[in-house]
Amino acid sequence: MRIMILGGDGYLGWPTAMYFSARGHDVAVVDNMIKRYWEAELGVEPLHHVPSMYSRVRRWREVAGKQIETFVGDIARNHRFLYGALERFKPDAIVHYAEQPSAPYSMMDRGKCVETQINNVAGTLNLLFGLRHVCPDAHIIKLGTMGEYGTPNIDIEEGWLELEHNGRKDRVLFPKKPGSFYHLSKVHDSHNLEFACRIWGCRVTDLNQGVVYGIDTDETLMDPELPTSFHYDGVFGTVLNRFVVQAVHGLPLSIFGKGGQTRGFLNIRDTLRCVELAALNPADKGKFRVFNQFTEQFSVLDLAERVARVGKRRKLDVKLEHSANPRIELEEHYYHPKHSALLSLGLQPHLLTDEVVDGMITAVQAASDRIDTNVVDAAVKWRQQ
Amino acid sequence: MRIMILGGDGYLGWPTAMYFSARGHDVAVVDNMIKRYWEAELGVEPLHHVPSMYSRVRRWREVAGKQIETFVGDIARNHRFLYGALERFKPDAIVHYAEQPSAPYSMMDRGKCVETQINNVAGTLNLLFGLRHVCPDAHIIKLGTMGEYGTPNIDIEEGWLELEHNGRKDRVLFPKKPGSFYHLSKVHDSHNLEFACRIWGCRVTDLNQGVVYGIDTDETLMDPELPTSFHYDGVFGTVLNRFVVQAVHGLPLSIFGKGGQTRGFLNIRDTLRCVELAALNPADKGKFRVFNQFTEQFSVLDLAERVARVGKRRKLDVKLEHSANPRIELEEHYYHPKHSALLSLGLQPHLLTDEVVDGMITAVQAASDRIDTNVVDAAVKWRQQ
Repeated sequence: MRIMILGGDGYLGWPTAMYFSARGHDVAVVDNMIKRYWEAELGVEPLHHVPSMYSRVRRWREVAGKQIETFVGDIARNHRFLYGALERFKPDAIVHYAEQPSAPYSMMDRGKCVETQINNVAGTLNLLFGLRHVCPDAHIIKLGTMGEYGTPNIDIEEGWLELEHNGRKDRVLFPKKPGSFYHLSKVHDSHNLEFACRIWGCRVTDLNQGVVYGIDTDETLMDPELPTSFHYDGVFGTVLNRFVVQAVHGLPLSIFGKGGQTRGFLNIRDTLRCVELAALNPADKGKFRVFNQFTEQFSVLDLAERVARVGKRRKLDVKLEHSANPRIELEEHYYHPKHSALLSLGLQPHLLTDEVVDGMITAVQAASDRIDTNVVDAAVKWRQQ
Repeated sequence: MRIMILGGDGYLGWPTAMYFSARGHDVAVVDNMIKRYWEAELGVEPLHHVPSMYSRVRRWREVAGKQIETFVGDIARNHRFLYGALERFKPDAIVHYAEQPSAPYSMMDRGKCVETQINNVAGTLNLLFGLRHVCPDAHIIKLGTMGEYGTPNIDIEEGWLELEHNGRKDRVLFPKKPGSFYHLSKVHDSHNLEFACRIWGCRVTDLNQGVVYGIDTDETLMDPELPTSFHYDGVFGTVLNRFVVQAVHGLPLSIFGKGGQTRGFLNIRDTLRCVELAALNPADKGKFRVFNQFTEQFSVLDLAERVARVGKRRKLDVKLEHSANPRIELEEHYYHPKHSALLSLGLQPHLLTDEVVDGMITAVQAASDRIDTNVVDAAVKWRQQ
């Protein structure tokens, strides 16, 4: 299969590219490197040095003997570049990670809010038009987020909802109540994608992904020059990754408010497998298919206690610290999202065992001299714009 | 009350400005004139010559003895201009019409699709940040559209839906299934606005407006130099306005497909009154309030038959012509949208009587030498991108 990975320089994009390449698919990566600019702008860096995309593609060729095609350009601001890449590579499937991925970033100020929404929405629209122009049968696998749903008081279905109202029935997009301008950008994308399926017969799988944790995949472990960008800062770092870094460095685990915020989580290895399952089982023509992509749900406090327990076994001095919640969100709420579609396609989850946390601690310890304590707690306030 | 009209040069913006000014409010108009550029780009013009916004503001001062403050600049691409206008005028309420208003325009090609969504979404985001910065208590009256809902098989409520699912209840944004990239941009706006109410305590009234018809208001009739921009072309003209022009010019009334497409409609005079009712009864702090703003519903065929009947009485030779539908939409469907909120605030509808159609025919006949038959039928195809 010919797979194009948009956002191929990113935390998930690069491991996904290697994963498909290792399994014999033809892979292309597309990125504009703007995430590296955003990191520089905020003064944050991934925990491990991440060689350039070109370097990692070269190293992958040396290590694995496989070629990954490389396109550097901006899909949101330069549709001709994107059309050209599609024309040259002719993908069967496009995995679209090429979006500004951070909720706190989108909440920092007006400029970053507007940049997030324009970048994400225009990139996805350009992709839809590019596909229509070049390869209308290609399957778009779009990364959305479970955060699009918010925390409704009803069960969360997978994208669509069969509802009855005043004695009549319809099947509708699941009503969403996202919690940041970033999450809103993904809701906008979902609406645009559904429309394109409806009017142009596109085939789209929207993966509403939970919070990803983890550092390594089989492919990143093949060589020290093939890492992915593991973030632990307050803007780009996800919660479990951040807790492990805090535990290793002797910082208290920072819990926003009560810590009862419950979310879906998954191991980075499962992200890759889920994307593979979507690619191997494409959506039908005209179908906007949504999978809720996570394997377990935890509250923030559950995760902190888990890291504390494993950390103590490793003789780390781990403390929990509740701080005022900079976000606006419910700290205690109903949360019952369905996630059976990917399981029925064959996903076998890597669950969050103590051994997994232990392995993360080991990996972080190996790079502990690179931890920048100035950025771990940089909490962006939802009301300070 | 101090009212700022964004999009004050437009079909609805200019009459709204005069309407509030005539009733003793302090009014400012804001526009970047881009709609006039879009008209030039497509080679279409309003039926009557529309003097510049500056000219009409001057003429209004001469005729009515009232000053309207004028700000020319771009709210989507120049937030500093918008912040400056808000700082100088300090509005109590902001009526936000400043969006690309045409579904066919948004469907013409990739560039116009992306421009529509960026223009509309970024303008509204800048407004939210501007308000937060300058006048957080001001009331935003945002023009949305009934087209955001699409044509669901269930009753359409006013913005929100109380639903029960698997034995649990929640109040959610009404699930939407819009029919063009333009309508999608309004859905994106609605989500962004609801979020701003939730996290920042903004007060927003989202007016999901039906299709507006009509040429004149009490204020436009005060002087020939105070008209609004009546469009009858296939891109910016709404259906009834277009039918009247076709009838006057002896062109067949062009009905897309079966003509069973049913929509909510209202007279331009009622648009002004609805906006006034919203302004006089502002939304509470933190409340995202939605009103469905239309007074009657008709199918396209109903309207064509109505125009034909009145036209024949006027000795016009009116024919109906069904053509292949360039849009992708249901031509027969359930349609039951609620619209009681504005009625309970005191709206007394101007219904679409034969006299109203007759009056429109008279007004169009007076300018019939300006009808450009090349642009009346310019139907943009939803599948031709």
